[in-house]
Amino acid sequence: MLKSIFYHAGCPVCVSAEHDIVSLIGNQNVEIVHLGEQKNRIGEAEQRGVKSVPALLTPTGNVLHLNFGASMADVKG
Amino acid sequence: MLKSIFYHAGCPVCVSAEHDIVSLIGNQNVEIVHLGEQKNRIGEAEQRGVKSVPALLTPTGNVLHLNFGASMADVKG
Repeated sequence: MLKSIFYHAGCPVCVSAEHDIVSLIGNQNVEIVHLGEQKNRIGEAEQRGVKSVPALLTPTGNVLHLNFGASMADVKG
Repeated sequence: MLKSIFYHAGCPVCVSAEHDIVSLIGNQNVEIVHLGEQKNRIGEAEQRGVKSVPALLTPTGNVLHLNFGASMADVKG
């Protein structure tokens, strides 16, 4: 299976969703990207359709926005 | 693994998210509940914290609200 990418920004909502996603789809199937710490990946996330975090980019290229934590504007700020 | 429950109401956003979730966590690990067709389960969903659909109730009892499709008020209507 191709990897999913879980984008987050360290917020409590993000961390909680991260635990859920990792336990559901498996640690080995998801790359975790902390946009607060890896700001060079914000552009990539936006280009792929991420509008808020936490969000899961599936292997098929769909973005699932999970419980709202922060907007991308907040992440950039 | 305990089953997750995916609550939806047949909207396009729901159907798209359903495909993603099923392919990510596996058909056998998730029960699909169409609240438009199974209105007797709306109360159960609300009690568990579902505020909009589509939503995924994890085995640990957390609710992940995926891309917003419809509010529970819409589902009841």
